[in-house]
This record gives sequence, structure tokens and C-alpha cells, in this order.
Amino acid sequence: MIRPLRLEPLTREVFAPYGEVIETFGAERRMINEGTTERFHALAHADVSAGGGTAILSIFQASRRRFPVAVRMLEQHPLGSQAFYPLSDDEWLVVVGEGNDTPDPATLRCFRATGRQGVNYARGTWHHPVLVLQPQQCFLVVDREGPGSNLSERFFDPADHRLISP
Amino acid sequence: MIRPLRLEPLTREVFAPYGEVIETFGAERRMINEGTTERFHALAHADVSAGGGTAILSIFQASRRRFPVAVRMLEQHPLGSQAFYPLSDDEWLVVVGEGNDTPDPATLRCFRATGRQGVNYARGTWHHPVLVLQPQQCFLVVDREGPGSNLSERFFDPADHRLISP
Repeated sequence: MIRPLRLEPLTREVFAPYGEVIETFGAERRMINEGTTERFHALAHADVSAGGGTAILSIFQASRRRFPVAVRMLEQHPLGSQAFYPLSDDEWLVVVGEGNDTPDPATLRCFRATGRQGVNYARGTWHHPVLVLQPQQCFLVVDREGPGSNLSERFFDPADHRLISP
Repeated sequence: MIRPLRLEPLTREVFAPYGEVIETFGAERRMINEGTTERFHALAHADVSAGGGTAILSIFQASRRRFPVAVRMLEQHPLGSQAFYPLSDDEWLVVVGEGNDTPDPATLRCFRATGRQGVNYARGTWHHPVLVLQPQQCFLVVDREGPGSNLSERFFDPADHRLISP
């Protein structure tokens, strides 16, 4: 019997230990371009320069997994932040945990993001690969390219798996 | 009488002198996340480190100008690239020109981008502020934050203005 993982709303405040929430709500606004454009400024900051890295933009096309999904592992990018912003107005799920070399399964949390909320995982934040609720959802991703190994994965003991039922 | 500016389709090839086109079509694909995600890798590269800059993510909410629009000026960011990716599947317009200290009005070009095409203006590329065709369109923007002056604007002589009628 896999224990369930509760879904929580995503806000800047609850996500602060893990990174940045990318949303216009509550953001600094600047009018530019002769008043024709509103700039919601610096919603996220790429932190990718470690080890000579630079920021690249990619698109991820994520397919829905069969729900309920068992959270069996987390990954981290030790050399850089990684930002996701949805390209369709569909909800998606953000799963994170705490820990240094290994995430503590007791700290797992799952946030339900709206289709107008992105996240920027801070460098080293343990997180689950992207989970979507529609058959396919695309994201613009800003992360690090450069020398060095920028991916760690940790698999949990089966007794520590947690179940997500959106 | 302001001379018209012809609209051209946006492709990687025609846009290469000005920067990168951000689109999945023709891109390098990598399967990741146990085969549940397709990564269209490194569609654009942030070039923002000049003068101690870093990459930030912002959202631009652009309002439609009254068409036909007269192109009266261009701007450039001498210290960094600037990427735009549309957050709704609506066409938009990309206006660029060539020149070093000042853009040559004879080189003005206007590209019609689809709602699934972004661009990353190369550092120093002369371009017009974003032009949208719907009443409001949002974009995720990746550009430079850091010390120094990163905006130049050049206004054309009225005889060199060009008219865009989408």
C-alpha cells in the first residue's frame, strides 16, 4: 500500500525554499515600448554559470503518465537552475524534496501549478521529472549547458514511494 | 506617402543574420524522463555575460498598436541577446534591420511569426519593439540583467519610415 502525497496549491511563499515561481501575479511591473507593453520583470534568475555554464532555451513536450503515479525517485541539477514555463493554459504538477546528497522521502511535496505558473528550480533542488495532466503539454525550459555532470538521480526504497492522484 | 514594408515568413535560414528562431520544427530531439518527455534541445542560447550580466526570465504583455503601424525607430541591446517566445498560439511580427552604430533603413525586414515560433535576437541586433496582432499577447522573455547601459534607440528620418499592414 503506497501512501498518498497530498496536492498543495503553488505560491511563491511555499515554493521559496525550492526556487522561484514564474507568474505575473504580484510581480514588479514596468511599462515599456511607448506604453504598449507591460514588462513583469525578472520573475526568475538563471543560475547557470558554475563550471563555465551558459543558459539555453529548449522546449519540452511532456506526455501524461498513467495516474495514479508513484513517486519513486527525484533528480537534481547540481550545476544549474532549471526553469519551466507552460505553453498551454493547463494545470501541471511540481514535486520536490529536501536533502543534500540524497533527498529525504519524508520531505516530499507536490504542488498543483496553474497553466499560468512556471517554476525555476534552484540549483541543486531535488525534483521529479515534469508531470502533466493532459495527454501532451509543452514547456519552455531555461537551463544550463556546459562542461561537467549536471544530473543526479536518487531512487527511493519501495516503502518510501508516494502516490499522486490528481 | 509612407512606403510599405513587405511581410515575409519566418524561417531559421532567413533569420540567421539576426539571431535564432525558437521552434520545434527541424530541431534536435532527445527522449528523456523514461521516455515520457521529448526535449527539443538548445533552440536558443542566451548571450548575456558581457559586463557581468546574467539571464533573467520576464513576461511581456503586449497590446496591439493601431494598424497600419509606421516603423519609425529600431532598438538594440548592445550587451545581450533577448529571446521572445509566445504564450498563446497567435501570430506576431518581428521587425529587424542591419547596421552597427545606426540601422540602415534600407535594410528593414518584417517577418510574420506563428504562435509556435519565438526568436532570440542576437546581441546588438537592431529590432523593433514587439508587435502583436491580437488585442493582447504575452511572451516569455529571456534577456540580460546586469551593470551597464543595454538599450540603444535610433529614430529614422520621416522619409525613411515604413508602413506595416498585416
